[in-house]
Amino acid sequence: VTLEHDLAAIVGGQHVLVDPDLRASYEVDWSGRFKGTARCVVRPADTQQVVSVLRACAADGVPVTVQGGNTGLVGGGVPAGGEVLLSLVRLDQLEPVDAVAAQVSVGAGVRLEALQRHAKAAGFDFGVDLAARSAATVGGLVATNAGGIRVVRYGSMRAQLVGLEAVLADGTVLSRLAPPAKDNTGYDWPQLLCGSEGTLAVITKVRVRLVEPSTERAVALVGVADTAAALALLAQARRRFTTLGAAEIFYADGLSLVRSVNALPAPFDDSFAAYVILEAFGNKPTDEILDLLSECDAVGDATVASDPVGRTRLWAYRESHTEAINTAGVPVKLDVCVPMGSLVALVDQLPSTVTDAAPSSRLIVFGHLNEGNLHVNVLGAGERAEAVTDAVLKLVASHGGSISSEHGVGRAKTQWLTLSRSAEEIETMRRLKNALDPQNLLNPNVLLPPP
Amino acid sequence: VTLEHDLAAIVGGQHVLVDPDLRASYEVDWSGRFKGTARCVVRPADTQQVVSVLRACAADGVPVTVQGGNTGLVGGGVPAGGEVLLSLVRLDQLEPVDAVAAQVSVGAGVRLEALQRHAKAAGFDFGVDLAARSAATVGGLVATNAGGIRVVRYGSMRAQLVGLEAVLADGTVLSRLAPPAKDNTGYDWPQLLCGSEGTLAVITKVRVRLVEPSTERAVALVGVADTAAALALLAQARRRFTTLGAAEIFYADGLSLVRSVNALPAPFDDSFAAYVILEAFGNKPTDEILDLLSECDAVGDATVASDPVGRTRLWAYRESHTEAINTAGVPVKLDVCVPMGSLVALVDQLPSTVTDAAPSSRLIVFGHLNEGNLHVNVLGAGERAEAVTDAVLKLVASHGGSISSEHGVGRAKTQWLTLSRSAEEIETMRRLKNALDPQNLLNPNVLLPPP
Repeated sequence: VTLEHDLAAIVGGQHVLVDPDLRASYEVDWSGRFKGTARCVVRPADTQQVVSVLRACAADGVPVTVQGGNTGLVGGGVPAGGEVLLSLVRLDQLEPVDAVAAQVSVGAGVRLEALQRHAKAAGFDFGVDLAARSAATVGGLVATNAGGIRVVRYGSMRAQLVGLEAVLADGTVLSRLAPPAKDNTGYDWPQLLCGSEGTLAVITKVRVRLVEPSTERAVALVGVADTAAALALLAQARRRFTTLGAAEIFYADGLSLVRSVNALPAPFDDSFAAYVILEAFGNKPTDEILDLLSECDAVGDATVASDPVGRTRLWAYRESHTEAINTAGVPVKLDVCVPMGSLVALVDQLPSTVTDAAPSSRLIVFGHLNEGNLHVNVLGAGERAEAVTDAVLKLVASHGGSISSEHGVGRAKTQWLTLSRSAEEIETMRRLKNALDPQNLLNPNVLLPPP
Repeated sequence: VTLEHDLAAIVGGQHVLVDPDLRASYEVDWSGRFKGTARCVVRPADTQQVVSVLRACAADGVPVTVQGGNTGLVGGGVPAGGEVLLSLVRLDQLEPVDAVAAQVSVGAGVRLEALQRHAKAAGFDFGVDLAARSAATVGGLVATNAGGIRVVRYGSMRAQLVGLEAVLADGTVLSRLAPPAKDNTGYDWPQLLCGSEGTLAVITKVRVRLVEPSTERAVALVGVADTAAALALLAQARRRFTTLGAAEIFYADGLSLVRSVNALPAPFDDSFAAYVILEAFGNKPTDEILDLLSECDAVGDATVASDPVGRTRLWAYRESHTEAINTAGVPVKLDVCVPMGSLVALVDQLPSTVTDAAPSSRLIVFGHLNEGNLHVNVLGAGERAEAVTDAVLKLVASHGGSISSEHGVGRAKTQWLTLSRSAEEIETMRRLKNALDPQNLLNPNVLLPPP
């Protein structure tokens, strides 16, 4: 009896994909950077099936790659070779919104967009949003502690997390889905699993807090002279708005690429080196944002939208970046964060750092201004991809920054983890991994570098 | 060479207390419920001394009890017998406030009141406050994920935590004191240590977020007919105030005890079954609170204060509870939380539950209304203390509540942990404990029940 036979008995034969054609879309990330061959793809329908699948794999000592919406950018959900690929997209149950607690429990495979719609239908909203909303799953968002464009207002996924259900590699089910409002009865293992990238357990169900919906909002796209001017605008915006909804930055090169790929018009008559998107919520946000723009010297030109169509049109300049970059080639994608005082220096140093490492490459930078979090994309690095990564991450570390602000470590950055974490921290992570997954079956080669 | 000799060489002879008289105040909690004999008390001055002390204890296989301000209520910082008592009160460094980040790093031994003063001197405030502020240490607050009277506004200690420095039982120093604003590079061990009650590591330094100071605030003491009326008042207050600062409840028996111990005047001409303290922040809070009181049918009588002296006078009715109860005897102290929909039933069922378990005892209940978190105090239970604990905690569990909302498990509640946590969760906690402290040296017998 083969493992595949056991797995088919658990989830049904049609949900064990062994044919290479059927497996293909699961075996490569959407940017095309990470590929691997899975032994098979298994698609369980509920927690009990996840338990049985994990027990069968553990019995045979077969490693498991855990995958949600496959929108990750560091290869964390892509097999290295020979793993059972555990796809959680069928765990897509939406439970009724608990309106009194402003919380909801959903299956790990629920798409972010479906959660957002579900929350809105009950008069709430969800605090995390990001461009991959149509495909990213809630379980993946928790496993990677996803950030996105609302961190300035609501925090990362960690801050939304109320409770979890998860399954350890040996099939043990942990459930702390609806803890009391205050509960100090031992270790907060849901917080430990958040950001652990599938290396400690398989998340099967998530309970999150919901937020009040924002009826009025206004978006401004602002052209500015440089990163320093963008920071001056941000500082003024933060003083004015207690409810700043988003603060994003991108640059002339990115705008140019986005416009050529998507045939978008120029936002302004003049060109600027940098562009900021600000979103304001709350009471008369359009008036507030217009007042801000009129009193801030850093503003070169600006356009404001308060209606949904206009807002979407302005956001498109920022949100189209990832897809436009992908259309242009297979990029090296880095996701870094430095202290605000180092942001100008980092942006100044990036072009020469990248060009020195990969002479004919093309650099596109954008990101979340409020946290000093930049997505550094390098096209055309070719065989110099590792050299570019090494140079940029060392530059970031020299500023005391993080080598991964929101994407996680995955397979892509394990060899640079020592730039952000001490040897003692990494060894402690290993001890925790070994405690929960002593056979090293869950997402091996992800997050932790080989000993 | 004895261990005491080694320890004296590390911290200086005057900071190793072996004389029973000198040890005495460390060996009993302030309520008098928990006592034990330490082998000696060691008072290191810095992280390196903590490392050396832990290494010396590990070499001899001697267990360590970790103690901060010794204000805990579950015996977590009191020795069971024969441990080295590691007192962290000399780790009292206050680093300068980082005004840009609105954060500060302080030694684990810094008292809450000192942190609050330090924050205020820099134009900020700290988000956690509780009655034991003059003695409780920041390290202890993190180790127990302390709550207090500001949870409704700022969250528990977990929500204030930015970074940590801690030492494992084997002397390994973990430092993640000032992580970048966003950093997804592996397991968030600071969140794992928060609420672990000294069983996983010794916290030596803490970085916390600071909050904007509240210039205007108003306090109302409100007499109401019962718990249901208190909840109606709370619901109306939450709709009105986006910045509700506190919502506390106590009852006629508690008021009577507090008044007799502290010779306080009656707050109102009439008596009420229950009393609510509401605190409002922000814009014209006195007007807002007066409007609320005038429109809410649940209000029996009310008095409002906006000046510091008046506010302190009203808060005294609530904050004097713990000391007044202690003056009256050695209480059984329970700290529970139920879903809001069960709070009225719990309050109704508590008197008979307690009387059935300990016929001649006296029940005093008060707590944090917003989270359904009640401090259940039973005086005069005598030999029936365990029976009372068992009956109350089982009642709470029957409502789906927590057996410890903010005090933690300590030594007091390990035998009831199964009421709040599944066998699988407890076994998982054991695996984590064993990974970081395989010799079981740190706070043995605290939090986790014997296997």
